Amino acid sequence: MSLLQQINSPSDLKKLSIDQLSEYAAEVKDYILRVSLKNGGHLASNLGVIDMTIALHYVFDCPKDKIIFDVGHQSYAHKIITGRRDRFESIRTEGGLSGFESMLESEYDAFSTGHASTSLSAGLGLARARDLSGDNYDVVSVIGDGALTGGMAYEALNDIGASKTRMIIVLNDNNMSISKNVGSVSRYLNRLRINARYNKLKGTLKRGIDGLPFIGPVTVKLAERIKTSLRLATTPNKMFEQFGVRYYGAYDGHSIFDMIRIFSELKKANEPVLVHLITNKGKGYAEAESDPERYHGIDGQNTGLAKKYSDDAADALISLAEKDEKVVVVSAAMLSGTGMKKFADVYPERTFDVGIAEEHAVTMAAGMAAGGLKPFVAIYSTFLQRGFDQIIHDVCNNSLPVVFLLDRAGINGADGVTHQGIYDISYLSMIPGMTVLTPSSGLELRKMIEYASTCSHPVALRYPKCYLNSSTINNDEAFNLKWSILRKSDSKTIILATGSRMIDLAYKTTDTTIVNCSTIKPLDREFIKERIDSNSKVITLEDGIKKGGFGEAVRELLCELSIAPEMHIMAFGDELRTELSSSASMKAAGLTVEELQKICS
Amino acid sequence: MSLLQQINSPSDLKKLSIDQLSEYAAEVKDYILRVSLKNGGHLASNLGVIDMTIALHYVFDCPKDKIIFDVGHQSYAHKIITGRRDRFESIRTEGGLSGFESMLESEYDAFSTGHASTSLSAGLGLARARDLSGDNYDVVSVIGDGALTGGMAYEALNDIGASKTRMIIVLNDNNMSISKNVGSVSRYLNRLRINARYNKLKGTLKRGIDGLPFIGPVTVKLAERIKTSLRLATTPNKMFEQFGVRYYGAYDGHSIFDMIRIFSELKKANEPVLVHLITNKGKGYAEAESDPERYHGIDGQNTGLAKKYSDDAADALISLAEKDEKVVVVSAAMLSGTGMKKFADVYPERTFDVGIAEEHAVTMAAGMAAGGLKPFVAIYSTFLQRGFDQIIHDVCNNSLPVVFLLDRAGINGADGVTHQGIYDISYLSMIPGMTVLTPSSGLELRKMIEYASTCSHPVALRYPKCYLNSSTINNDEAFNLKWSILRKSDSKTIILATGSRMIDLAYKTTDTTIVNCSTIKPLDREFIKERIDSNSKVITLEDGIKKGGFGEAVRELLCELSIAPEMHIMAFGDELRTELSSSASMKAAGLTVEELQKICS
Repeated sequence: MSLLQQINSPSDLKKLSIDQLSEYAAEVKDYILRVSLKNGGHLASNLGVIDMTIALHYVFDCPKDKIIFDVGHQSYAHKIITGRRDRFESIRTEGGLSGFESMLESEYDAFSTGHASTSLSAGLGLARARDLSGDNYDVVSVIGDGALTGGMAYEALNDIGASKTRMIIVLNDNNMSISKNVGSVSRYLNRLRINARYNKLKGTLKRGIDGLPFIGPVTVKLAERIKTSLRLATTPNKMFEQFGVRYYGAYDGHSIFDMIRIFSELKKANEPVLVHLITNKGKGYAEAESDPERYHGIDGQNTGLAKKYSDDAADALISLAEKDEKVVVVSAAMLSGTGMKKFADVYPERTFDVGIAEEHAVTMAAGMAAGGLKPFVAIYSTFLQRGFDQIIHDVCNNSLPVVFLLDRAGINGADGVTHQGIYDISYLSMIPGMTVLTPSSGLELRKMIEYASTCSHPVALRYPKCYLNSSTINNDEAFNLKWSILRKSDSKTIILATGSRMIDLAYKTTDTTIVNCSTIKPLDREFIKERIDSNSKVITLEDGIKKGGFGEAVRELLCELSIAPEMHIMAFGDELRTELSSSASMKAAGLTVEELQKICS
Repeated sequence: MSLLQQINSPSDLKKLSIDQLSEYAAEVKDYILRVSLKNGGHLASNLGVIDMTIALHYVFDCPKDKIIFDVGHQSYAHKIITGRRDRFESIRTEGGLSGFESMLESEYDAFSTGHASTSLSAGLGLARARDLSGDNYDVVSVIGDGALTGGMAYEALNDIGASKTRMIIVLNDNNMSISKNVGSVSRYLNRLRINARYNKLKGTLKRGIDGLPFIGPVTVKLAERIKTSLRLATTPNKMFEQFGVRYYGAYDGHSIFDMIRIFSELKKANEPVLVHLITNKGKGYAEAESDPERYHGIDGQNTGLAKKYSDDAADALISLAEKDEKVVVVSAAMLSGTGMKKFADVYPERTFDVGIAEEHAVTMAAGMAAGGLKPFVAIYSTFLQRGFDQIIHDVCNNSLPVVFLLDRAGINGADGVTHQGIYDISYLSMIPGMTVLTPSSGLELRKMIEYASTCSHPVALRYPKCYLNSSTINNDEAFNLKWSILRKSDSKTIILATGSRMIDLAYKTTDTTIVNCSTIKPLDREFIKERIDSNSKVITLEDGIKKGGFGEAVRELLCELSIAPEMHIMAFGDELRTELSSSASMKAAGLTVEELQKICS
């Protein structure tokens, strides 16, 4: 029986010898590799933290102790160790395990993660709860150097350092977030990395105790010696110490032996500490090690032949930039995901990747617009939620011509509840002065981008990752905010569909008129007045939340115009959507062809 | 003629001698003092930066050069210098000047401000626009030590330092934000302050050039000498230099002479620089100097005898905390404004002021709730927009029992467009799992807080600053999510009113039934089914934006229940609200007794 099969909980892990831990790590690596290549997922980051995760579970006692993996996409080894080995094959599939840490999935997941930079805040909250309740567990926040560029991580550090609350921060430093890290903090860490010369523990010490589990009086004595060597090994650090957080490092994040000793020592600290571990993203899988960006997130085996909106967005912006030197692109550490790497290759000096920093990205773009540029801010729908206040306060209140490109709008299957782009129609439409568009095809997206570049006010374009259909748009016509009929029928049923996904769904009905409602705000008032009357049956389709969404806006306009057709709003209701496939999410919300057909007939 | 009367633009200012500048500063101080005591406003912070503002305008050439005051509540002297002296008496009143920087008001306001920590991002955007456009102006961001605790300021610093874009950051350090600053950064600045021993320029140098305007060759030579002394005066700084931003300071922020020399020097820098100025909040007004927190924001002369919801919130939490040791309070640098200072006085160890850091506040509270505590997060409605993603991602996705207390909900007259709390009903109601309440009186707020403490899911309570009415709530009954009839009429008109302000408005009608709709989400389905039929005339009243708001939710429910009454939604429409009084804002939105009466009859 393999070690992999023997470990069903962290306590099983603690029975292994140090040598066996390395063997186990290799087996975990093979397992993660096999499943990820099949199911898709965040491969490289998971390979990089297997050794660290084993060392953490060897030293800490979960679920009593709390380990929070920032973002959580690197928690695969953690899941395998904590009783989810067998279910791991189901990760990121319908009914299976989440690809992130999830409190709803396991008591071993101390906090749910998904968006970056939350682990320090959540960890501090848990630590404070522990102190006030008189409990005595450890809190460990594992945060990458990428997530450290997020403002809320600093807000948390500021609070942690001042509060002196006992907690352990593990800085998982692979010098990558998703792409190469940006910003001065990254450069600063880089200097630490070079200066540190990998503070390895002395080999003699290692040989003397190799293979011993760290329990009992032997450990205590050793710990004393290790303490001294740790102290010596610590390079004088400035940034973290100024935040009031004691810094240890940098250490090799692939030496399980060293990390066990370090974590055992840090467990005794009575103050917030940060240990800086250098890891290798993609460790143990040559392809991923040499191209970690490509292997950061991979698609599963079932990827279809759909085209990516992000390609159209990049192409449109490149040709726009050629004509208009005011066009610039702003990204928040997602140049690849949003397709903007292509733009950056052509116009590096007009591409601004600000790191995982959506608040700053939005206001910086507002400043650019105030200075006469035409910034296009390309951020995933779910991540732009971080810039909600800045969109209101800095962009829309000043009517500045910032264009938002919200990729991954709507349901994002395998990523699950934390990454759904279903709030954007509502949170954007409510803001005075915002225009909200959604394309029916790549061609229409290109036309929308051209249109948006001519606007002197804010515009938001939302679209999912892919589209299947070839365009139904007339190539010669410019985008003009008008709705268009895609399929005409004599029946009284008219489907108002937003975006290519909903249009695809509508096409599965028969005998209905299908309208491409590519302009979500403002609604096409004239179209509604001309085409809809009280005898119509109107069905609105949107892959967003109903509350404050497109359908409700149509309803309000119909009421205002005193048109009273039979009306059905098909959208996401007020339930949490934890499903891990787009089709399951759509089904749970009733956004299926069966439901639609039922309403049509 | 006073100097105050002679200065109509920065170019007038540049004609004065150094001695005259001090004289002018004293006149500006008297003027600000007089107007602020009448109109209300941010007195202490304005008094603290008069000298600095004069020095800035003496050196830089606005509007060509761009000065951004973070938050902008300290821009009074700036407004007086830049052609708005005469209109200054109208500040924060209907039709008058905004109390913040506003691009819509003057070309001298390079960016609109209001919420904290935006000036570095906006400044970097302007600086990048300048560089790409081949322009050559200076960008100066004036940021307080309080606003520096906001995460987006760090996100910006990270980007500024790495980009090496030329811009000047003026750190206005008064060791206060609104209340005493918190966090390790504040402590760090404190150490700098002490170590710096006020790096004053040499007296001999000062005497030699006193009174000379700094133009022409004399300046150049002097500048060389000053450069040397600046270099010497700079204490080795760690934090900012690690961000890649060169640090100068600390200097006396009340020596106009010194600051003119420093700014003239920094103007020549070819990289981002930060100058640390120590100022005295409330300078020159003894009452404000000795109690700057009290004089941070003052009310005008017309303050009525309204009671404050924040007092009820604090009292309720204090008695709750007595019974339940899990109750804790989280604030984002607004203990006084939200009334929670009173709670902190009784339970200091259960009060967590995290600084101007709303993102962290929300997720930290989520961590506390995950650890078994019952956190009450008291943040103004408009500022909680900063935590929108965290409310979805960390609180609601995990159904954690965090209670949000949104003070200053609805229209906040004199603060204007940047501080309106009109989005909260929409941005909270759209989130699955969120309960949204609004009290009709202080007593009902107390009952709601008790109710919320028993919930195992998130709850948000929104309320304005004040209420006038005595309670219409039955003292014996617990809050139970039900709507109640406040006034019964035989007419078919039923007003569904949310919160005390709207109830007050409803009471001005005659012959209507008035309902206290204190539960905004979930709606009281039973009430609607029982009390409303297709013969009713329903009017909904809310001091929030219509899109995604209460009225639309009622409309959707009525449609679902197939009840088709005549219906009118009274709420804020899709326009920017820049009015500076609550009544003007209400009037512009049609939320007046006249409009209401018209609909009723």
